[in-house]
Amino acid sequence: MSTAAFLRPRAAQDLPARLARSAAVTGTGRHLRTEDVTGWLDERARAHRFTVRRVPLDRIEQWSFAPGTGDLVHRSGRFFAVRGLAARVDEGPYGSWQQPVIHQPEVGILGILAKEFDGVLHFLMQAKMEPGNPNLLQISPTVQATRSNYQRVHSGSEVKYLEHFTGAPPHLVLADSLQSEHGAWFYRKANRNMVVEAADTEVPTTPDHCWLTLGQLGELLRLDHVVNMDTRTVLGCLPLQGSEPGALHSDAGLLSWFTAERARHDVDVRLMPLADVKGWTRNADGIGRPDGRFFRVTGVSVEAGNREVTGWSQPLIEPCGAGMAAFVFRRLGGVPHLLVHARVEAGFLNRLELAPTVQCGLRDWEEAQAADRPLFLEAVLRAVREGGARYSAVHSEEGGRFLNACVRYLFVEADEDMALVEAPRGYAWATVGQLNTLVAHGHYLNVQARTLLACLNSGAVRL
Amino acid sequence: MSTAAFLRPRAAQDLPARLARSAAVTGTGRHLRTEDVTGWLDERARAHRFTVRRVPLDRIEQWSFAPGTGDLVHRSGRFFAVRGLAARVDEGPYGSWQQPVIHQPEVGILGILAKEFDGVLHFLMQAKMEPGNPNLLQISPTVQATRSNYQRVHSGSEVKYLEHFTGAPPHLVLADSLQSEHGAWFYRKANRNMVVEAADTEVPTTPDHCWLTLGQLGELLRLDHVVNMDTRTVLGCLPLQGSEPGALHSDAGLLSWFTAERARHDVDVRLMPLADVKGWTRNADGIGRPDGRFFRVTGVSVEAGNREVTGWSQPLIEPCGAGMAAFVFRRLGGVPHLLVHARVEAGFLNRLELAPTVQCGLRDWEEAQAADRPLFLEAVLRAVREGGARYSAVHSEEGGRFLNACVRYLFVEADEDMALVEAPRGYAWATVGQLNTLVAHGHYLNVQARTLLACLNSGAVRL
Repeated sequence: MSTAAFLRPRAAQDLPARLARSAAVTGTGRHLRTEDVTGWLDERARAHRFTVRRVPLDRIEQWSFAPGTGDLVHRSGRFFAVRGLAARVDEGPYGSWQQPVIHQPEVGILGILAKEFDGVLHFLMQAKMEPGNPNLLQISPTVQATRSNYQRVHSGSEVKYLEHFTGAPPHLVLADSLQSEHGAWFYRKANRNMVVEAADTEVPTTPDHCWLTLGQLGELLRLDHVVNMDTRTVLGCLPLQGSEPGALHSDAGLLSWFTAERARHDVDVRLMPLADVKGWTRNADGIGRPDGRFFRVTGVSVEAGNREVTGWSQPLIEPCGAGMAAFVFRRLGGVPHLLVHARVEAGFLNRLELAPTVQCGLRDWEEAQAADRPLFLEAVLRAVREGGARYSAVHSEEGGRFLNACVRYLFVEADEDMALVEAPRGYAWATVGQLNTLVAHGHYLNVQARTLLACLNSGAVRL
Repeated sequence: MSTAAFLRPRAAQDLPARLARSAAVTGTGRHLRTEDVTGWLDERARAHRFTVRRVPLDRIEQWSFAPGTGDLVHRSGRFFAVRGLAARVDEGPYGSWQQPVIHQPEVGILGILAKEFDGVLHFLMQAKMEPGNPNLLQISPTVQATRSNYQRVHSGSEVKYLEHFTGAPPHLVLADSLQSEHGAWFYRKANRNMVVEAADTEVPTTPDHCWLTLGQLGELLRLDHVVNMDTRTVLGCLPLQGSEPGALHSDAGLLSWFTAERARHDVDVRLMPLADVKGWTRNADGIGRPDGRFFRVTGVSVEAGNREVTGWSQPLIEPCGAGMAAFVFRRLGGVPHLLVHARVEAGFLNRLELAPTVQCGLRDWEEAQAADRPLFLEAVLRAVREGGARYSAVHSEEGGRFLNACVRYLFVEADEDMALVEAPRGYAWATVGQLNTLVAHGHYLNVQARTLLACLNSGAVRL
């Protein structure tokens, strides 16, 4: 065998075109018409008879408060734990604070299997129940597994399709990077976000799975609460390429801005015993703040049929009120640019990541002084009131960890009041192509920014 | 102004060619012949009359052991501290251990100013003394400053040329990324590695600075102890592009391998009080191990004329014996590939980074059982004995933190015994172009790998 036979091109030249072709196929795919997908979710819900009810924190089976620290931990020592976190940052209205946080050092896999049917890439999606979803079942990745999950700590059945991801030959991997979860609620959690092609393999499906095109996923992303967070973050990592003729900043210039932002912030974050966290109290409802702000830690008990185990209990984080995540965009030289924010979140591995222009819990800011409110919040709220958003849908965050965590996702075109070219400190204009390049390397875009990028990648919104 | 005027190309198309042109200019540059550079270093040493002498740890001016923790700290609370570190890893001969570690959460700047003279890019290099360098003065970046340094915590004079880096307009930035320092000795330390062009600005030089071409720096990199670590790491980040026709793995495949490596390792690292570190003892010589292995913490006192302050004392880490860092390479399909190692170091921000094929302290492995020795160590040592290394030079590591830390850097072509295509677990073949692409994003290549990449970028070695 000649060594020349070893060489591959460094990038699969036809992949962006194949993804664009899949994004162009809407209305129907190999399995289902898009309009029938929510019916299929309802049907699967009926088939499985799921019930979720709240339980007090001290009555969650297999979970207990560890002596000494007061951390909320699973009997196996695996899965995740709720611990305390102490943060000190150099900017923003808070300065320093303590809070409960989810600690889960293991890296999970969020994987979507792709396969071409009749020349069009389809993605194998799962109707999956998560106890924190307001509507329980949502469209989920082919595989969504913590390492405890797939190493079968809870002695459940094996994770279907997992072998496509753990044993993927490199040339079938379309995307594979470590991406953060919510930095406000997780301590340095990352998942592998993977898209793998099943090229010549037959892939048997189950009643809980179906093949959808990227365009169908885009249609579903225009609906509230249908496409789950894990799907959105993986779709935000698809290897699309910008065909833009240029950008306000060169890639090197954009990276330099981001590097300077990471370098200039002092962020000191430490885990601490949950029992010692100041400003939070534990009562029958869970762990929360007397002023009712931010979130509380609560418990649920689940009865289910098609999960790896047939029933379980667990803690969940329940936000106090809905959130918002909005990209302000404008055209520069005819090319759409998004105003990205270099946002510090206490749980990020590396101080800050790129976030939407506005990202906040709405209720937390209602009483805040005008000067403390996030930049552009008023402008985005005004656009929403006047029906001027280019895209608006409510999605719920990871239902395996968060209870009814609803966030309105928006794209809002800069109006005359905001039509700035010179971005304020901590913000920069970036093209969609530039974000697609960065996201491949992980820990650049936060989960909210990746959700909005998924809307662009799938054609749910066009700027 | 039309908005079209805002657009720039995402990448400066001519930059790789300009860097290649600079790398091709050897022998002499605008200021000095290459052969006169070491004479210039000697002359600057004589002009400044530097003296460095050892002092006991408890006699370092302005430094003391903090009550309670026993951490070695500066009176200002700035600069760096020597603390304890507890590590638990899932692979390798050690498993879990404790050690002293340098803690310095601030991000410093390592910056090289570039400017074209007669159509050739030159780099403004500094003859700089660092107390841990075996020969005191080495070729250093234009600017090498901790944040404490440039915010003038020690009330010294200002850092020359700093304004080119802190106020660089994005279009003049050629490279700017956060890069790790030695993960065995630093806890999550990162520096901004910057190359900035001074396009239309006159740049006055001082007797301690001179303009050198990339090719001249390559010539100097063939000598021992002339080009300091900070210069090497910045040169390892130059935005060169591979012109290779292909690679063993696509870029996506290589990233997937790396992501899987990061995901599979359990690494638990915590700071702890220095006083409680097990296996290390403090005596008149410093803090070390009774078995004399690894390193010790020691102190020096410096008298100098051209530093930001005229004299100071500080702790240094002194390795017990020399180290080695070697890339094994081979041609696949005519294209040189380097065998990179996904290496866990306790101080890395994100578990592991890409390292040379072999990287170790030589003395630590002399007594080790064969099975515990690093893969390829014997093969590389054999190549060195037989004079078969393509590149071999001894460089010293960061002289501001390490005392006489000498590492032999090597490129060794795979001989018949090692001519494997299937890399062992934890290793992968990557082209030089692929490493150049990755390094731009930071925290991918460790400092030893960046040193060896600098040798390639500057033409010190050709594979």
